[in-house]
Amino acid sequence: MKPILNKFVLLAGVIASLTPAYSQGPLASWNDGPAKQAIVEFVKATTTQGSPQFVPLEERVATFDQDGTLWVEHPMYTQVMYCLERVPDLVKAKPELANVAPFNTVLELLHGDRAAMEKLTLPDIEKIGIATITDISVETFQAEVKQWLAAAKDPRWKKPYTELTYLPMQEVLKYLRANGYKTYIVTGGGQDFVRVYAEQTYGIPPEQIVGTALSTKYGYEKDGKPFLTKEPKLVVNDNDAGKPEGIHLMIGRRPHIAFGNSTGDQQMLEYTKAGDGARLSLLVLHDDAEREYAYGPADGLPDTKVGTFTQALYDEAKKNGWTVISMKKDWKTIFAFENK
Amino acid sequence: MKPILNKFVLLAGVIASLTPAYSQGPLASWNDGPAKQAIVEFVKATTTQGSPQFVPLEERVATFDQDGTLWVEHPMYTQVMYCLERVPDLVKAKPELANVAPFNTVLELLHGDRAAMEKLTLPDIEKIGIATITDISVETFQAEVKQWLAAAKDPRWKKPYTELTYLPMQEVLKYLRANGYKTYIVTGGGQDFVRVYAEQTYGIPPEQIVGTALSTKYGYEKDGKPFLTKEPKLVVNDNDAGKPEGIHLMIGRRPHIAFGNSTGDQQMLEYTKAGDGARLSLLVLHDDAEREYAYGPADGLPDTKVGTFTQALYDEAKKNGWTVISMKKDWKTIFAFENK
Repeated sequence: MKPILNKFVLLAGVIASLTPAYSQGPLASWNDGPAKQAIVEFVKATTTQGSPQFVPLEERVATFDQDGTLWVEHPMYTQVMYCLERVPDLVKAKPELANVAPFNTVLELLHGDRAAMEKLTLPDIEKIGIATITDISVETFQAEVKQWLAAAKDPRWKKPYTELTYLPMQEVLKYLRANGYKTYIVTGGGQDFVRVYAEQTYGIPPEQIVGTALSTKYGYEKDGKPFLTKEPKLVVNDNDAGKPEGIHLMIGRRPHIAFGNSTGDQQMLEYTKAGDGARLSLLVLHDDAEREYAYGPADGLPDTKVGTFTQALYDEAKKNGWTVISMKKDWKTIFAFENK
Repeated sequence: MKPILNKFVLLAGVIASLTPAYSQGPLASWNDGPAKQAIVEFVKATTTQGSPQFVPLEERVATFDQDGTLWVEHPMYTQVMYCLERVPDLVKAKPELANVAPFNTVLELLHGDRAAMEKLTLPDIEKIGIATITDISVETFQAEVKQWLAAAKDPRWKKPYTELTYLPMQEVLKYLRANGYKTYIVTGGGQDFVRVYAEQTYGIPPEQIVGTALSTKYGYEKDGKPFLTKEPKLVVNDNDAGKPEGIHLMIGRRPHIAFGNSTGDQQMLEYTKAGDGARLSLLVLHDDAEREYAYGPADGLPDTKVGTFTQALYDEAKKNGWTVISMKKDWKTIFAFENK
């Protein structure tokens, strides 16, 4: 080999190593299979001029559940972790809460008593949520969430929560946007919570976050400056039937493609599929205990209270032509940090 | 003059006559004056790279009240006209309403008894609104509004309501969009009502309409197809303090520029001005009885219940550096059809 040719070969090798994503297409972390194929065929059918299923640019709406669909939701939703970890500060401000349930239980939990978690009921968690995220200004809330996210780590991977997003789903977000789709998060989680990091984490701006929302109250500071306070009054309960209702309120268009992973997403996926023309509904199945978690109870997987995917939902998906994504079989890589 | 030159001169004349908008700049229907100057300077300051007041693209949010700001609201809001004119169909479906107030009053009014209008109170109008726009599917509502808009005419100009938009404001919408601003309507009117025509009328898509919103209820038809029904339950009351609250809920960003025309817009304009950096708040003053309508009671104009602009609001505008747009002095043309 002549030296000059040698240089070119070397250079080509360097370029190839720098651009794995380009050389492998837009869904590089997906294994070839029915799920990847369904997504690619849907995009081709809806964006190719002259296709009978062509969708005009302004109608290209894609919606994504967040917890368990775009990022890890086990052992507990990130926002619940946030609320629990806010309790010490809350108790510092209101010391009388230190001996009152459920706040004392949370303190035990945070001091290492893992069994205390079992004592917390859903109403307890709601009570903690209300106490930690309301009666403060929108700006203060945003600053507190930002600060927490910068420091908090997931207990298993010891990484910031915002690094626990699924690389294959990040690729889907980018792929859909590159094809003119407007990507929305439609989450049972708090709208204001998700807005704090969604732009940086997913490339999704605040106005494209549909979530569970509390009311705000307009008021004035002493100097006359107006501000909004978060109130303990539910405006949008963005779970189950609340998802299509929230989509109508906030977007006003029916999605053409929607992703979920649990019973809370069922109505959004039904509503999406019920539209005219090409519509695709997909469910992420957590069947990979080794690389992430395994829970259902669909398909014989262990049962869970967090992100339940029932057999009934699995059967509905199969009956109605929804695509079930197997984390284990369909995803080559789960997290971006695996590739580093 | 040589023939060849002659041809060029002729051609130049033809081009000039075809492109009046280009030869006159982006705000061709505005007279030179402080209002036009404030808008142009704001856009330059916030969109020129290196300007100390530069606003990144994703933060360029502009909000517009609709009734009285983008289109005519006198003698009565268009949506109220819609609800009144729906009453005969409602009575056809439920004949028992024909002799019940306020429905019988509306029938008298529609049969030409103008004095009947005086009998209608605000609670009456709310009652009629609830009866005519709820308990039907979202799709049926959209179809009914579309059908009505295609046929209905404003009593003074004998034109479809959607032609009664203000040309100078249409120019502002386009000018802001051409400079990277995302334009939103923030209206006390019904969100679903405005969404039906806003894309065609203003170039503003459904997801950028923030309005007074009722809840919807997810359900299934007999064949299992899901649909949303409009319910008589208020989710967003997008007036007064409800405007900044609605902006937070639906957009999640504070506007950099906001336009209104009445006391219902005061809080939106305050909230806009209270942000950091360059912010502009503007109010349209209806002081042109000849070409449109004249009402305040600010500035000695006649009082009105529809689109009230009080002297207190006028004083607040002057005190806080908001721009008051005089229809009479600042607008060269009011409606596009005047130019035809």
